[in-house]
Amino acid sequence: MRIMRAEQFGLKREVEYGTPEQNASVAAIVAAVREEGDAALLRFSEQFDGVKLDAGSLRVTKQEIEAAYGQVDAAFLEAIREAAANIKSFHEKQKRNSWIDLQPDGTQLGQIMRPLKRVGVYVPGGKAAYPSSVLMNVIPAQVAGVPEIVMVTPPATGGKAGIDPYILVAAAEAGVKEMYRVGGAQAIAALAYGTATIAPVDKICGPGNIYVALAKRAVFGAVDIDSIAGPSEIAVLADDSANPVYVAADLLSQAEHDEMASAILVTPSERLANAVGAEVDRQLAELPREAIARSSIDSYGAALLVESLEEGIEVINKLAPEHLEIMTQDPMSLLGKIENAGAIFLGPYSSEPVGDYFAGPNHIIPTNGTARFSSPVNVDDFMKKSSLIYYSKDALMANGGKIMTLARHEGLEGHARAIEVRLEQQQAD
Amino acid sequence: MRIMRAEQFGLKREVEYGTPEQNASVAAIVAAVREEGDAALLRFSEQFDGVKLDAGSLRVTKQEIEAAYGQVDAAFLEAIREAAANIKSFHEKQKRNSWIDLQPDGTQLGQIMRPLKRVGVYVPGGKAAYPSSVLMNVIPAQVAGVPEIVMVTPPATGGKAGIDPYILVAAAEAGVKEMYRVGGAQAIAALAYGTATIAPVDKICGPGNIYVALAKRAVFGAVDIDSIAGPSEIAVLADDSANPVYVAADLLSQAEHDEMASAILVTPSERLANAVGAEVDRQLAELPREAIARSSIDSYGAALLVESLEEGIEVINKLAPEHLEIMTQDPMSLLGKIENAGAIFLGPYSSEPVGDYFAGPNHIIPTNGTARFSSPVNVDDFMKKSSLIYYSKDALMANGGKIMTLARHEGLEGHARAIEVRLEQQQAD
Repeated sequence: MRIMRAEQFGLKREVEYGTPEQNASVAAIVAAVREEGDAALLRFSEQFDGVKLDAGSLRVTKQEIEAAYGQVDAAFLEAIREAAANIKSFHEKQKRNSWIDLQPDGTQLGQIMRPLKRVGVYVPGGKAAYPSSVLMNVIPAQVAGVPEIVMVTPPATGGKAGIDPYILVAAAEAGVKEMYRVGGAQAIAALAYGTATIAPVDKICGPGNIYVALAKRAVFGAVDIDSIAGPSEIAVLADDSANPVYVAADLLSQAEHDEMASAILVTPSERLANAVGAEVDRQLAELPREAIARSSIDSYGAALLVESLEEGIEVINKLAPEHLEIMTQDPMSLLGKIENAGAIFLGPYSSEPVGDYFAGPNHIIPTNGTARFSSPVNVDDFMKKSSLIYYSKDALMANGGKIMTLARHEGLEGHARAIEVRLEQQQAD
Repeated sequence: MRIMRAEQFGLKREVEYGTPEQNASVAAIVAAVREEGDAALLRFSEQFDGVKLDAGSLRVTKQEIEAAYGQVDAAFLEAIREAAANIKSFHEKQKRNSWIDLQPDGTQLGQIMRPLKRVGVYVPGGKAAYPSSVLMNVIPAQVAGVPEIVMVTPPATGGKAGIDPYILVAAAEAGVKEMYRVGGAQAIAALAYGTATIAPVDKICGPGNIYVALAKRAVFGAVDIDSIAGPSEIAVLADDSANPVYVAADLLSQAEHDEMASAILVTPSERLANAVGAEVDRQLAELPREAIARSSIDSYGAALLVESLEEGIEVINKLAPEHLEIMTQDPMSLLGKIENAGAIFLGPYSSEPVGDYFAGPNHIIPTNGTARFSSPVNVDDFMKKSSLIYYSKDALMANGGKIMTLARHEGLEGHARAIEVRLEQQQAD
């Protein structure tokens, strides 16, 4: 792992917008599904997934979900249930009530909080099918009160239409009752515009390959979408008290995700930097995903030396990492200074996988520096607000003149007259 | 105004994504500002706004702001100050605290709420320069606690570099201390990437012409942006008790905005529909913006007849209007059934301009059916959340095995080992 002064380091990763050919392909798929509905879905499933279906078999049956429970092992089921309960509990603390402000003149103003009505969750197929991500996408919507949550996931490739039983069980445990075996850009188009079998949704979330990401971008506006996730990141801020074995293991747990993942140590301790470097080398050699992790560490990993923890915090705030671990003598004392980080893990036992799988906070977190302005997935993402305005007669009589002044200044006479007709009526009465 | 059965009506307006030429022009401007900084800003200001500036004169001076106060009339100043106070008061009720959940095993989980650090507000020039929109964009950011709020607005065209004093006063009253005379796509690029004179921001908001909208879309990802507003909409749900003079005036207050604005009455009362139609004709003839309002009413306006208020509510929920007025005998009793509406105005005195200018709720509200999944501008738009995870040693010892089960199921051995090294260490101690 490279060791360098912090000011020598620059993390540059461009956002992936797809090639013109990929965008054109996605546009054609979306247009076909919008026009032909189920027929296009079935055609693309055969073409891309090698699975011949009819419209009646798109929906996953209750029997398949029950059968899936027989196929997952007991330790997994126990762990995922406890994880789901923790995630639910954490997200329930985020719920907000509608509120109303009653003013002395009779005016009532407020914000009404409502869940979205129907949400679609995309779950990728193959090796990227993570049960934990199903929980992290579905449970916040469930807690928000979304009455209809629908999952789509590609049928297994190679002619079989089966879906990973672990995914089915995770979805069922999270409360999903409506699941379809369809993937790719065609699934996103179906969720956005609807077909005879799949009713359209208000928002689409969940990760996917480049075609899924481009399709989400293409339908945005007709429906809401979640943010497009970039490669994963961890930054560890540590002082001389940190255990280099823990630090190295946590850096590698990010690096194994993806060759473009980034794992960065920020420390004032050259001794720690050297020890972590040696540990990374030692642990890397034993990892099943060694090649991926090594490439990530070589390209986007580093130990950055700083003069002090204060300077380290400046570096962190510039990086705005998805995950930040603080392993210092007194991590709580630094918390108030962290401006930009998606999730903050404090102390030696808060290893990132604790948050990835189990503790309760969401593991879908802003990447690529966007923690400067965005947030981990949360209950608000599945709710909308409406403003409430009940203006009393007294309030209108008292303030109508000022409203007309402002409207007329902006050249909107029709706005002023909407007030004026009421004031005149009251004077006439 | 057309009167028809609700099921015969379909509101179809396409979202504006710009021509290929406009997009190419915006991409070139953004690239030039990113590369050349201030020099490009000054060049484009001369080219598009006909104003020759140097970098030192981009920033609006304190003297100009003071001078602006001498140029606005007293009634305007009084009204805008009271409006600003109402907007501030309403938005302050939205503020949320960071929270922490202390668990018996020592674990602490929470959400940290923080304001964005720096926000840019675009204010269009010419006739679209609305002081009220300055308040509606700036005050929520101010209330969120954003320490740096910067306004950009085009210099007046025709060689003079002055800015509308009403805009300067509104911005100053809202608390903006940093203002630049630069507009168009070049201003958006400067806010996103920074120049020697203008430091980059975390989020850009505010309305603008098609070039501004396309530039915001182009820089999204590097910074956050607000949603791109479509043409304005009002729907009025009314029964026989409603005053047709009020209903018509309110419909016209939307219609006068824009030829593409939509103004729709939904009612079970044919008598009311006819009376409102007659009133619209009568009031239209007296409006200064008659041509615009007439075009809007002809193309996108209608009185929709329904069998009952219940059916009317179904129509409203499908329309998901930006503004909804309910003028019925007992409007509060219907509130719980309204699923989709950006802002809801109840009763005969809650005319939409009350909310546009004065009452306190934001007037920047989702358009084009997006109230299904989005919200009026609010304090949350200028805050971000970080998850907080402090896991105790006891919690890790108790739950580490389950975390490892889940990680290994997903094939992420490095995640499992980050837990394992800690469990082994504890067993060794």
